Amino acid sequence: MKKGEVTRQRIIEVSAPIFNQRGFAGCSMQDLMEATGLEKGGLYRHFESKEELAVEAFKYALKLTIDARISSAQEVESSAGAIGKLRRMVERFVKVPSPIAGGCPLMNTAVDADDGNPKLRSLARDGVRVWKAKICKIVEDGVAAREIKKGTDPRRIANAIVATLEGSLMISRLEGNREAMANAQETLETMLQALAR
Amino acid sequence: MKKGEVTRQRIIEVSAPIFNQRGFAGCSMQDLMEATGLEKGGLYRHFESKEELAVEAFKYALKLTIDARISSAQEVESSAGAIGKLRRMVERFVKVPSPIAGGCPLMNTAVDADDGNPKLRSLARDGVRVWKAKICKIVEDGVAAREIKKGTDPRRIANAIVATLEGSLMISRLEGNREAMANAQETLETMLQALAR
Repeated sequence: MKKGEVTRQRIIEVSAPIFNQRGFAGCSMQDLMEATGLEKGGLYRHFESKEELAVEAFKYALKLTIDARISSAQEVESSAGAIGKLRRMVERFVKVPSPIAGGCPLMNTAVDADDGNPKLRSLARDGVRVWKAKICKIVEDGVAAREIKKGTDPRRIANAIVATLEGSLMISRLEGNREAMANAQETLETMLQALAR
Repeated sequence: MKKGEVTRQRIIEVSAPIFNQRGFAGCSMQDLMEATGLEKGGLYRHFESKEELAVEAFKYALKLTIDARISSAQEVESSAGAIGKLRRMVERFVKVPSPIAGGCPLMNTAVDADDGNPKLRSLARDGVRVWKAKICKIVEDGVAAREIKKGTDPRRIANAIVATLEGSLMISRLEGNREAMANAQETLETMLQALAR
């Protein structure tokens, strides 16, 4: 990697948790200058605008998050059966904190950008789509393998898992304790058991 | 109401959807001046700071929301039985749009303020507490009336309902359709039916 690329990557990595905690509008160029130790000109040498940096920072945060939750989650892949895989995915979300300060970047950006920045909104939508598609695939495989009841709607299960986990994280962060996350795991475990054929 | 009070209340009502859509940091004094048609001095005559106005605007948005969902929800109160009341509460959330532009003020402020403004964060926490307490009370009444299974944890049910609804609203707003909300209603209906003694 060239020096310029190293600097660019460092700016992205340092900016990601700041955007994740403060939102796009809540994060000023001044904040980014302080965090990176660069002057405004230094930042603009690598990024055309605050928006371009925010987009790259969110892509980086999203990749870390998706990796932590699903992609490189060998634990999930190696779990036996579809219900076992979904159970492990839920467990990972509940037990493993967000890989980036400020909570789930998906939820933060979804809420921050739903009335705002269309590029960030579109990236957040992609993130939810990838996560839900992974769950749908596991459910479909489970139905094909006769482990999960025929007629189970994979999208309903995907929506239930994502909504329960993200909503519970919101409550947990607000209340400052893990009760809502622990409850989410119990609630989803009951749902998963009811999927079994 | 005196003229000053009328103006103050009008500023709150006009500002509430702007804060709800853009967040605290994303809403500038300029935005508020344009929306209210007042000069900066006019706004500061009624509110000491942007924070004071944001707090009053959020209190107003929260009251509208809580009223729409639980307090004045005579439909909920008049539904027969605990499970009927909870079912109606879920249905109202799914069918009745947020009374204020920009989605659920509770979720918006929870996510906006979790790393940010402590006053707004504390108000959001109160809002979740009131909503969950209402659900807990209904579950406890249901257990006492032998309608709901003994040993049911009211807080787990409250967390499941609030998390599923809020998380589904996040997904629905991101995807621009109602599928996740409709799925939330089905998922919660299954959970409610399983509570019956």
